[in-house]
This record gives sequence, C-alpha cells and structure tokens, in this order.
Amino acid sequence: MNTIRQIPGGVCAAKGFLAGGVHCGIRRNQSKRDLSLLYSEVPANAAALYTTNRVKGAPLTVTKKHLADGKARAVLCNSGNANTCNADGEEVAEAMCESLAEEMGLSAADVLVASTGVIGQPLNLAPIRSGIPPLVQSLSPDGSRLAAEGIMTTDTVAKEVAVEFTLDGKPCRLGGIAKGSGMIHPNMATMLVFLTTDAAVSPEMLEKALRTDVSSSFNMVSVDGDTSTNDMVVLLANGLAGNTEITAEGESFAAFMRALNTVTVCLCRMLAGDGEGATRLLECTVRGAKDTQTARVAAKSVICSSLVKSAMFGADANWGRVLCALGYSGADIRIDRVGVSFVSAKRSVEVCRNGAGVPFSEELAKEILLEKEIEIRVTVGDGPGEATAWGCDLTYDYVKINGDYRT
Amino acid sequence: MNTIRQIPGGVCAAKGFLAGGVHCGIRRNQSKRDLSLLYSEVPANAAALYTTNRVKGAPLTVTKKHLADGKARAVLCNSGNANTCNADGEEVAEAMCESLAEEMGLSAADVLVASTGVIGQPLNLAPIRSGIPPLVQSLSPDGSRLAAEGIMTTDTVAKEVAVEFTLDGKPCRLGGIAKGSGMIHPNMATMLVFLTTDAAVSPEMLEKALRTDVSSSFNMVSVDGDTSTNDMVVLLANGLAGNTEITAEGESFAAFMRALNTVTVCLCRMLAGDGEGATRLLECTVRGAKDTQTARVAAKSVICSSLVKSAMFGADANWGRVLCALGYSGADIRIDRVGVSFVSAKRSVEVCRNGAGVPFSEELAKEILLEKEIEIRVTVGDGPGEATAWGCDLTYDYVKINGDYRT
Repeated sequence: MNTIRQIPGGVCAAKGFLAGGVHCGIRRNQSKRDLSLLYSEVPANAAALYTTNRVKGAPLTVTKKHLADGKARAVLCNSGNANTCNADGEEVAEAMCESLAEEMGLSAADVLVASTGVIGQPLNLAPIRSGIPPLVQSLSPDGSRLAAEGIMTTDTVAKEVAVEFTLDGKPCRLGGIAKGSGMIHPNMATMLVFLTTDAAVSPEMLEKALRTDVSSSFNMVSVDGDTSTNDMVVLLANGLAGNTEITAEGESFAAFMRALNTVTVCLCRMLAGDGEGATRLLECTVRGAKDTQTARVAAKSVICSSLVKSAMFGADANWGRVLCALGYSGADIRIDRVGVSFVSAKRSVEVCRNGAGVPFSEELAKEILLEKEIEIRVTVGDGPGEATAWGCDLTYDYVKINGDYRT
Repeated sequence: MNTIRQIPGGVCAAKGFLAGGVHCGIRRNQSKRDLSLLYSEVPANAAALYTTNRVKGAPLTVTKKHLADGKARAVLCNSGNANTCNADGEEVAEAMCESLAEEMGLSAADVLVASTGVIGQPLNLAPIRSGIPPLVQSLSPDGSRLAAEGIMTTDTVAKEVAVEFTLDGKPCRLGGIAKGSGMIHPNMATMLVFLTTDAAVSPEMLEKALRTDVSSSFNMVSVDGDTSTNDMVVLLANGLAGNTEITAEGESFAAFMRALNTVTVCLCRMLAGDGEGATRLLECTVRGAKDTQTARVAAKSVICSSLVKSAMFGADANWGRVLCALGYSGADIRIDRVGVSFVSAKRSVEVCRNGAGVPFSEELAKEILLEKEIEIRVTVGDGPGEATAWGCDLTYDYVKINGDYRT
C-alpha cells in the first residue's frame, strides 16, 4: 500500500502532459536544443517558487503574473539567454507567451515562461517566434527528454524522473525535469525544475506542498554558492488521475508529499552530481542536532565549503575541513560531540569522534573517496534533528567552464 | 603634518621589537621555516581578535587567557600544524609558551601563541622545544622577514609592511606581518596577523582600534569563503616612541587609527593578491549605498562569488555575475540604480548602467581584465555608504593546492 514506484516518462509520465524541444537559434551550436515546451491537455492547477535574488529574470515576473489565478496550461522555456537585466525583458517574456498562445489557441495568461543562460544580453524574439511552430509540432507524450535537453546550459546530462503512487485507490503519476549545473545555491527555489502530476490538488495545497518540499530538497543543494537570478520551480497538477481533489492536509496530502519528495530528492542528486565540472556527488547527512533547522544549516555549510569540495576532488580524507565548516556554519552544535565518517555505497570509514581524530586507514579512506557518490556522515549529538544536503566536488573543470562562459 | 609614510622593517620597524624565524622540523621541507617569534624588549600593551568559528584552535584559547591582563612580551607561532581538534591541544599550546618563557626568562603568561596548518593532527612538542634556542638566537631588529616566512603555509610571498607617523610630535612606527592564502573568509579577525607599534596606547584603546579597524580591513577579505579555526590578529604597543599614552578618543587616536588602517589595508591587499592559486587581486568598491554596512555586504558578496572569481580568471567581462552577486547579497540596494565598471591602474570600462548593459569594447575590457590588479567599481545610488572588499580570482591552482593539501 502507498508504495512509490519509479517509472519512465519524466515530465510526461502523468496523464495528459505532452512535452517537446527544438533548436531555434538562440544558442549557436545547432546540435543543442534551446527551446522547450510542456503542455497539459486540460487546464491544470499550478504553483511556483522563485529565486530570492533581488535581481530577478524578467520571465519570473511574467510567470508570477500569469500564475495569479493558480492555473496554467503550458510552460515555455529557452536556454542560452537568461533574459535578465535587459530593459525590454518583460516585454520580450510577454511576447514569448503571446506567440505560443496564438500558435496553440490558448490565452497568454495560461502560459508560464522561463529562461536560463547569460545575464544582461538582449534576448532576440525572432528565433523564438520562428521556433514555436516546430516546437508545438514536437509535442508528444514521449517528449520529456526533448524538453529536458532544451533547458540544459552547461549541464552534461538531461535530468528527468517520474514516480507512480496511489491516492483514493487511483494510480497517480508525478514527474519532472530539471536543469542545473552552475549558479546553484537555491534559496526558496532552485534552478529550473518543472514538475507535473495528474493528481488533483488545489492550487493552495500545491503551493503548500512545493514550499514545504523545497526546504528539504532544492534548498539543500549547492554547487557554487551563487544564487541564480532565474531560479524557478513549477508544479502543474491536471487532475486526470481522478482522485478526489486534495484541498487540505491529511493522509492523501501526506502521500502526495512523499511522492513529490521522492521525485525532488532524485532531481537534487542529479543536479548536484552534474554540478559544473563535478566528478563526484557529495551528500552530507547530519544527525543528532537539536532540531531540523540546525541540522540543515550544518549540512549545507559542509556542502558549500570550497575546501571540503577541493579535498573531495583530491580524494583526501581531510576531515578537519568538515569540522571547520561546521564550526563557522552558525549552527548551534557542540563540536566536542561531533563524529564524522566517509561512506560510499559499499564501505565506510570513521575519521573523527567527539571532535577529535581517530586512527583510520588512509588507503581505505582513499578508496572510498574515489567512488562517484560519497556521503559525509556527520553526527552532532543525540537530538532529533537531521538533514541532508547535496553538492559536488570543486574541480579544474568548474574553473574552466566558468572562466570562459560567455564566449 | 600627520603624514603617514611607508618604511621598511615590517614587524620590527617599531622601536624595541625583535623578530626571528627558524625551521624546527614541524614541516618536512627543511627549506621552509616553521617557527616564528616576535619579542618586545619592554612590556607591551596588547589586544587580539579571534576567529568566530565555533571550532577554535587551542592556541587561541591559551592566548586569550594570557592576554587577560592586556600585556604581552612575545608571540610564538608555528606553521605546518594548526593544533586544532586535538585532545591535548591546550596542554601543548601552554607547553610551547612555557618552553619559550623558560628560555627567555619571561613569565609564560606574557607569551602569546598561534598555530596554522592542518587541523586534527597532534602537534609534536619535541621539534618545537629543540627549535626554541636557535629561534631565540635568531631574534634581531632585521628579523621581520624571517618571522613572516615562518608563519607561511601555502602563501607564496612573505607579507610585511610598516609605516611611520607622528603623535605629539614624536615619530611613531607601526608595522606588521601576515599569513593568509587559503581558508580565508575572516569574521571579526582574519588569518594570522601580527602588528607592532612603539606608540603608547592603553590596552582598552588598542582593542578598540583593532576592533574598529578589522571591520573595514581584514573582515572585508575573502579568498574562499571558509572561515578558519585559527584566525587571529594581535597588536602589540610598547610605548617606546614616547608619545603621551592614548587613553581615549581624540586627535591622537584618530591619527593612530589612520596609521593602523594604512598598514592593515596594505596587508589585506597582500593577503588577497596571494590567495591560493590567485593570478589577480580583485578589489570591489561599492559607493552610493544607504550606509556603510549595506556597502560592505554588497562588496563582499561580489568578492566571494565563485562565478565572478572564475570570470575574472578568464578575463571575461561577465558583469551579469556581478549583478547576480549583488542581488543575492541581501544588501538593500535598488538594482535599477546599479552601475558597474572594470578598472585597472591605467584604464576603465563601463559595462552596466542603471541595472542594464551598455555597449562596450570587449577588447578594452579584456585588456583591463588581464592586468594583475582589477577594481570592480560598483555604484548603487547616491547614498553616503561606501566600502571596499578584497579577493582574488578562482583558478585551477586553487583546486590543485586544495585537492591535495595534507599529503
């Protein structure tokens, strides 16, 4: 009962959702898609969260306006240009929605819009306008991957996932796509994440679900400490699964939240593991804190430390840097209670107990730290607070990618 | 009148201060000094500030205790081991002070102690004990450089500076040495900085001077966002210049503060320019903020951004990343008032006005960004608040140095 099962289909796994993606010409490289579309065959309830950066991409302002009624039919997203810090940004974002609405016979107010790429370069509408007809043509129930590709910037892999779960005995689906890689240090939301479900959920409960979820999912991811200007998470729910609409907390809402968190945590791991230049996914778990917030602050500080990240790149069990990051995190923890282990899928090595080093095998530590996915397991006492944060190592390639991004 | 003139001599420029440094064997490389000593021929008033990291090196605890009376004669410092997160850390730090006190006929309570290097590895007393006699032998009025070398870790250059100024018609000197490079993101203090002056200043006013100064100097430096466990700034004042002791605010205190700030800003620039792996010194100036604190938060955010730092390494005039960093800084500024220029010693190029891009010569920008010292000049309005922060670019070498630090 109430099992959550991973299924294929990504953002199209839920009934009634189509997706597509094309190259329209914003990006010079013709082999890279740069325009994506999600579409619900029936009106969907929708909720979104946005970056807390004071510099906000124009698409965020327009999406917020179009979401005032809690309803949406389509999400249009381009990569290659963030449409941010441009004098005509809002105008361009509105025109994008209007072009799509016209092509599909929708109201522009039912189109949400997002952009990702370079900041401060005017976004040319022409390629988008000419790209919309083929984009709409590309819509298909198998289109999740096309859409996931169209929102990629420096990402090296397309990110999609979906699950099936049950509400009122009805099978429901929830899936999503994401783009991440750099400028990732979400605060209230993250890079671009589009989630769809055929479960029936009221706009208010959708927003509540999203807001609650991101505090333990996307807000716990950091690649480089830079909070983007264009972060956005959108969740569309079209109700085609036929369950009784969720309008309040209760068993169904809890089941929905579990499914949502399964998808978002999976996307978090994909985002972190594909961080710019990353060779390793880092997961820091903190247990035994006095409360959840304390555990979150501690876990995120470790994941954000350039020195911890560099040590992980070098497969160096330099646990002193973990303690250093815990120490400056601001989290209320007793350092003399801290324990640290490095853990891979197969093995673990304890390196610190009660705030001081313990003898350990450097060879074993090295072997563990050479794995692709590493857990930095931290205990800070016997309190009930625990949290997980995701990040990646800091590598030559991060510097390379970002030393020459515009050109 | 009241001119401040740079002079040689570093931490020994002030009357009555001697310094020295030797290799005692904590570091394996015999060509690297690893033990330094500062000594005042007469009792000195002293003040110190320490890291805000909850993980504090044992030497900080001992120094704090020894400074309870506001007096000190000597500062002993080793590199190669931070003596932090060690069960016997305080005992070892006390024993260091006692060994020196015995050798020099001082009270251990008049010896301050500092350590820098790897965290969490026991510090062996034996090489320090055997190194103390030659260390004391090495004391000399020309020893500033020896001492500056002995506190270096991944630093590539020794950092020392001194100035001469006038109080009550008496020439006074104030100089210092510093070590920095990595794990630099001070909060209330910085990496190791030792300052000496022959001006007469009461312990209370010394502490006040130091506390006021660091908020606009060392606390505005960041190399990697990691606040060290061992940060310490010490200021010794032995009064040999013969001025009337400064015991309150006033003209003399203001003159002293100016001299102090001249030395500390100079050291800040040295610390940032020699950041781990750095090829460029970055200086972000913010003007026109509503108050100083707002300007400081904004300037530091720009300097700390991994993406800005990577762009500077690539000499890429990607000003959108500067706006992004201002936007997530939390500083209360209006983005639509922001202007950005990149400035070198010879030229400048305006890239953003009123929050949007302006046409500029990419070639000129590239030439400017290829210089060794770059100012990121930000205006945010017409308020009185201004601040400067110092940092460096993020390079392959930062990753290299920190991917394999312990071994």
